[in-house]
Amino acid sequence: MAGGRGTRFWPKSRERMPKHLLDIAGERTLIQETVTRIETLVPAENILIVTGLSHAGELMKQLPNIPPENVLIEPVGRNTAPCIGLAALHVKRKHPEEVMAVLPADHIITDAREFCEVLSIAAEVARQGNYLVTIGIPPTRPEVGYGYIERGTLKISVRGRDVHEVASIREKPPLETAKTFLKQGGFYWNSGMFVWRVDAILRAMEKFLPALHQSMIGIEEAMGTDREQEIIDREYAHIEPISIDYGVMEKAKNVLLIRGDFGWSDVGSWDALWEISGRDEDGNAASTCGHFVGVDAKDSLVHSTGKMVALIGVKDLIVVETEDSLLICKRGRSQDVKKVVDILEKKNMKEFL
Amino acid sequence: MAGGRGTRFWPKSRERMPKHLLDIAGERTLIQETVTRIETLVPAENILIVTGLSHAGELMKQLPNIPPENVLIEPVGRNTAPCIGLAALHVKRKHPEEVMAVLPADHIITDAREFCEVLSIAAEVARQGNYLVTIGIPPTRPEVGYGYIERGTLKISVRGRDVHEVASIREKPPLETAKTFLKQGGFYWNSGMFVWRVDAILRAMEKFLPALHQSMIGIEEAMGTDREQEIIDREYAHIEPISIDYGVMEKAKNVLLIRGDFGWSDVGSWDALWEISGRDEDGNAASTCGHFVGVDAKDSLVHSTGKMVALIGVKDLIVVETEDSLLICKRGRSQDVKKVVDILEKKNMKEFL
Repeated sequence: MAGGRGTRFWPKSRERMPKHLLDIAGERTLIQETVTRIETLVPAENILIVTGLSHAGELMKQLPNIPPENVLIEPVGRNTAPCIGLAALHVKRKHPEEVMAVLPADHIITDAREFCEVLSIAAEVARQGNYLVTIGIPPTRPEVGYGYIERGTLKISVRGRDVHEVASIREKPPLETAKTFLKQGGFYWNSGMFVWRVDAILRAMEKFLPALHQSMIGIEEAMGTDREQEIIDREYAHIEPISIDYGVMEKAKNVLLIRGDFGWSDVGSWDALWEISGRDEDGNAASTCGHFVGVDAKDSLVHSTGKMVALIGVKDLIVVETEDSLLICKRGRSQDVKKVVDILEKKNMKEFL
Repeated sequence: MAGGRGTRFWPKSRERMPKHLLDIAGERTLIQETVTRIETLVPAENILIVTGLSHAGELMKQLPNIPPENVLIEPVGRNTAPCIGLAALHVKRKHPEEVMAVLPADHIITDAREFCEVLSIAAEVARQGNYLVTIGIPPTRPEVGYGYIERGTLKISVRGRDVHEVASIREKPPLETAKTFLKQGGFYWNSGMFVWRVDAILRAMEKFLPALHQSMIGIEEAMGTDREQEIIDREYAHIEPISIDYGVMEKAKNVLLIRGDFGWSDVGSWDALWEISGRDEDGNAASTCGHFVGVDAKDSLVHSTGKMVALIGVKDLIVVETEDSLLICKRGRSQDVKKVVDILEKKNMKEFL
């Protein structure tokens, strides 16, 4: 899943350059990392990428090994359920009972080997029948920005890993509730990563999202004909935006949970990026091609295009310099980056969006 | 006087681009401002500029109206006394008894009209005889970075302005002393601006700086011959660096003081620039071609090359972006800019110096 605008990473993220196409966390872009991470498990011809028209060109440029026909283009974003449905149709054509994994393109995972192990166990479980397997992340803080999954009774153990039923799925909780979850234990962050047989998820969509399922049937019938894009455009025009979590996962009874302890972050903001970045002895994480001088400068994130960046007497800053813009934000305030984007929109300064 | 390296304004000031050649305080560079300020008093052909070889080219480009032969080049900087001596020789050749004003090229003066009035009164007084007139700035804070001039008895009044004798000249004082000066009154900052007859200053140099005066005589004899540059180079090789304040003003008995209340600043640092800059209602002074967005951002100085600069949740920052560098410095810490320059020198990163 390679959607989203990624306004929270302004000025690096832009309308034409959302987060998953950015190299904010290393040499490679997030989507390149995502594809590389699974290359031992899934051959390139079996990787489908769902994205928007305006990002498809750059995406294909970044992923020359993905066959162009595997890049599925949604005319408009309708949240995750339609995106997953569209991908499921394409999987079904070739492998009607095969297992598919749903992975966001813009997450960071530090332990790729463990990730692949978890993913392959999830696939082994999913292959056995009508299960919707979700990967839950052991929480490290009472984060209010994520949904939580409550672990139920043990279902099965595979290669020493427990797979549980799900007792409940909770939407983003208030802080006090999140604290209780952490204290109580048995709650996991909803990572937005799922593994299931293609027939299982389509069956669940039919049950819980019948209107969407109808649209999918329409698209399925047109697939491979020269009316395909026309029908997709027509259906997407009236598909209701809905997330797979709200539309399916919260309602389904056949959800299983596997624990994913592989250094996960959805890097939802510059603050989150600092948290997971390697830092020097002063707490600074500088991506400046080595061009960084700190004089009494601490706990800051610096991204630049290669300029010499000097910080003097500052602490807890986020500094991001691009070809045409410069952001300086107090750490802990990066949710307000959206406000800057809003102001630029209001001022109609499109060149900076 | 257009000397100095101006490392304190890194990254704008560079080895090849010292402070007086920078447009840090407006549309024009400081030296352009300095020349423009006096254009109603002094025709361009009577303006002499003393500078170093490596800056002369850029300087002449910035001041196309100054005749190239009026740009006097010192082979090495030897502080202000030799610089003033060299200029005095050139004035003397054409006007042996005329008044000359000595002005640093890198000061800011907000009230140019008042400045010209003070300067012309100082010239009127100096014309009358053997006086060394210094312009003293009424202090607004117990600054320890300047010398102070103590007002003596009233000497003369011209067009309603009092000119005093000087009771004492004090070098940069400790803070407690500076506070006493302010409380006591009658003390002025030494602005480094002087007015005197060319014969008066050369006579004073002969008396207090005989070795320098000897060098000047050597240069004077070679002036206009094809050995001029050779002799200048030879003399400068062994001239002792010394300031006019220490070498002459502190010792001479014929110093007069005129009060200069015309919005003066020698803008010795980025901090000083913020102090004298026009600021918006949040206290921000942004030179960003209008490309500035502040979200809860206060009391900061921002200079950029035209990039969109967004500040979020920060206070008291100095932000300076150039083609190849970016400085972010806590206000009050800009004296440490020199440390950055030192580090870059130590790392031999010449391209940023």
